[in-house]
Amino acid sequence: MPAAPPRTSALGAALAHARAHRPRFVEELKTFVRFPTVGTQPKHAADMARCARWLAEHLRGLGLRAALVPGPGHPVVRAEWRKAPGRPTVLLYGHYDVQPAEPLDLWHSPPFEPVVREGVLYGRGACDDKGQMWAHVKALESWMRTAGRLPVNVVCLFEGEEESGSAGLTAFLERHGRELGADVAVVSDMAMRGPGVPAITYAMRGALGVELEVRRAGGELHSGVFGGAVANPLEALCAIVAGLHDARGRVAIPGFYDAVRAPEPGERAYLRRTGPTDAELLRDAGVERGDGERGYGAYERTALRPSLSVNGVTGGYSGDGVKAVIPARAVAKLSFRLVADQDPHEVDRLFRAHVARVAPPSVDAEVRTSFGARPVLLSPRDPALRSAAAAVREAFGRAPVFLRSGGTIPVVGVMAERLGIPVVLVGFGLPDDGMHAPNEKFRLANLYRGIEASIRLLARAASATS
Amino acid sequence: MPAAPPRTSALGAALAHARAHRPRFVEELKTFVRFPTVGTQPKHAADMARCARWLAEHLRGLGLRAALVPGPGHPVVRAEWRKAPGRPTVLLYGHYDVQPAEPLDLWHSPPFEPVVREGVLYGRGACDDKGQMWAHVKALESWMRTAGRLPVNVVCLFEGEEESGSAGLTAFLERHGRELGADVAVVSDMAMRGPGVPAITYAMRGALGVELEVRRAGGELHSGVFGGAVANPLEALCAIVAGLHDARGRVAIPGFYDAVRAPEPGERAYLRRTGPTDAELLRDAGVERGDGERGYGAYERTALRPSLSVNGVTGGYSGDGVKAVIPARAVAKLSFRLVADQDPHEVDRLFRAHVARVAPPSVDAEVRTSFGARPVLLSPRDPALRSAAAAVREAFGRAPVFLRSGGTIPVVGVMAERLGIPVVLVGFGLPDDGMHAPNEKFRLANLYRGIEASIRLLARAASATS
Repeated sequence: MPAAPPRTSALGAALAHARAHRPRFVEELKTFVRFPTVGTQPKHAADMARCARWLAEHLRGLGLRAALVPGPGHPVVRAEWRKAPGRPTVLLYGHYDVQPAEPLDLWHSPPFEPVVREGVLYGRGACDDKGQMWAHVKALESWMRTAGRLPVNVVCLFEGEEESGSAGLTAFLERHGRELGADVAVVSDMAMRGPGVPAITYAMRGALGVELEVRRAGGELHSGVFGGAVANPLEALCAIVAGLHDARGRVAIPGFYDAVRAPEPGERAYLRRTGPTDAELLRDAGVERGDGERGYGAYERTALRPSLSVNGVTGGYSGDGVKAVIPARAVAKLSFRLVADQDPHEVDRLFRAHVARVAPPSVDAEVRTSFGARPVLLSPRDPALRSAAAAVREAFGRAPVFLRSGGTIPVVGVMAERLGIPVVLVGFGLPDDGMHAPNEKFRLANLYRGIEASIRLLARAASATS
Repeated sequence: MPAAPPRTSALGAALAHARAHRPRFVEELKTFVRFPTVGTQPKHAADMARCARWLAEHLRGLGLRAALVPGPGHPVVRAEWRKAPGRPTVLLYGHYDVQPAEPLDLWHSPPFEPVVREGVLYGRGACDDKGQMWAHVKALESWMRTAGRLPVNVVCLFEGEEESGSAGLTAFLERHGRELGADVAVVSDMAMRGPGVPAITYAMRGALGVELEVRRAGGELHSGVFGGAVANPLEALCAIVAGLHDARGRVAIPGFYDAVRAPEPGERAYLRRTGPTDAELLRDAGVERGDGERGYGAYERTALRPSLSVNGVTGGYSGDGVKAVIPARAVAKLSFRLVADQDPHEVDRLFRAHVARVAPPSVDAEVRTSFGARPVLLSPRDPALRSAAAAVREAFGRAPVFLRSGGTIPVVGVMAERLGIPVVLVGFGLPDDGMHAPNEKFRLANLYRGIEASIRLLARAASATS
């Protein structure tokens, strides 16, 4: 039989604490953002470790037991408070790694020297995901410093490999995930619907990252002496890349769409009503006109449909001036976004078979798989999503809309599948906050509302049976 | 009435001088190679100026009048000796600028620290063109230090912009070229047929260098949030690049082949007999199999036919690890090689029209022209070419073959057209000397034979009527 949920006065005290300490919360978040935790760049390995230790120490200071889960990559910060026997256990997820800050010259202020201008915090990771994670950490503080306890059992898993595929946390969850005894997971690493309009995300795209390298024997060659008579790996790479989409904007890899689950009846109409319009989405992107798969709107293209983006190409001479060479190798970085029920392993296999089929015989083409993540599709009718929606409504003064997201959080797929628990995906960022782009930002108003939503969410979770 | 040609004993003395001073000549050439004269890289501007001054000073030391011809780019070193009235005037051409040395990690010894190993000089510019130019400079020395004079009038034009389009020298030749009073030009900036087999080149390809930039508004975007719904300039660039060749290996720009002059009757058969076989050319390239325009052999593809090479592509993220972005811009560097009677301006116009036609409306495509050079086609029956062939036969002990070259020397087209004089294209390098590649080299035996050929060529030129 579960203990009684906290009294309203306890909730009020926690909320009051959160409001009273906002300036300090922002200063702490700036300290957090100052760690240049670009997990994918080896030069930042020490920064990653320093940040993880700082985060664990901070959580200990709030009264949680915290430790680093070591692994071959960057550690997971695991923190727990389990002094509410009989109450549900909430798994709070976040990540302290950030995207690379390059190109640096496009930043108006240095990416790892966070500044607040007109109520907005600028810095790499300000939104994705340090700022959003901080909302939950400060909700924990608000309960602990007022009630001296949390309304539910909590286990925090804050990883350092989200931007590179979450290998360590995935392995941990697959091995020890069920031992955590979590009843519901809460993840804040996505966007709201728009200013003032909260959202709960019920679907996320999966991902598959690959590198395609095309090589030729013979090294760099003079394009006068040999131009016209030998294969150019860079041209071969461009041809392969160009052939990955057809004239209708569809991914031209045979079998790619076979596993795509059709939307539920009425789902496209619901998303058209509640989701961003083409004009909104393209304005957030800063472009005048969209481009993509024929037969779908911009939002559907990003959320309902899978996609393939070429993230980078390198080959030949890129310095100043002219160099008349035929390169010997060229590399493309590609990433797929997948929707239910596409399987990254299967797409990887299809891609490799396609490359082997289309690469000209005069070059060698090699595919290296960087990471894979399963797509997630939850039901908006799940009680956990409905309870979270109520907490969010109270904090933001408006009911959230249910959205599909185009982004990917690798471990969400693992939590949903391996742990078999509902995952509440509630974001406090905005679509134009520049996650992954220069001048990433986070509106402090959304930090404050996020803290309040998290405080209320923990209170409501206490009412659920474990 | 021309003065008498130098006596055989004078020729013998010049040849003896050249043989006696070989070690010093090599040391001087190493000094020349040590200047990192990468003319296309702004950081080497001071090195270019230092090298030009050193070269002018060296020519003064031989008894020539030498000066730097200033211009908006790197200076031309102009040196003259005109004390043989009534005798012909020979224009000696060379260039002291070199290709960029990158990628540096592929060099076995530093590119600008020349070393001799087993009779071969290694260093950037050792062959292209400092080593070959040095053969002529040391031929001038051999005459001046023995006979105290040259057998003909000589004007040297050694430029610093060959690898970037020869803008300065071209402008100079167009304005003052005829004032030079040159009767024949001699250019050594190409390859022999092979070890021990000299060659005279009667055709060179022209060139057109362009940069293609594809852009989209909105900056770098998150490939999860926006992937599938906005244009990817890098993918658009790859598609344009891929579409520049058709399935038969031909350049797919409408009109590109319209001006190509058909070979003379018997010319393809002659080139098949005397030119490199497919196997040789591909071995020099270090590749197992060729690739290119259907219906032509490897040598024909490089010398008889025009071509288009993509020299480099840059776009998106190329650092360590993964960055899930849709880039906002991408750039390709391309170079055409043209044959008679293609006009670089016309090809530039065709390329721009093609890009405007095929670029998708969701991106902006911009073409920037880097340089253009006309193709050259001379007659092997020209008396100047026949006289040079005799000098080369005496120096190398074997008659040269007549070749078409796939490379480009921009000013050769200007000399042939504007000055209306025959251009003797006689190279002392070998096809595998790695011009434009890491570990560029020059065999000292060919330096010595080149000096002797130049000494004899000047003597024979004296017999021609001016």
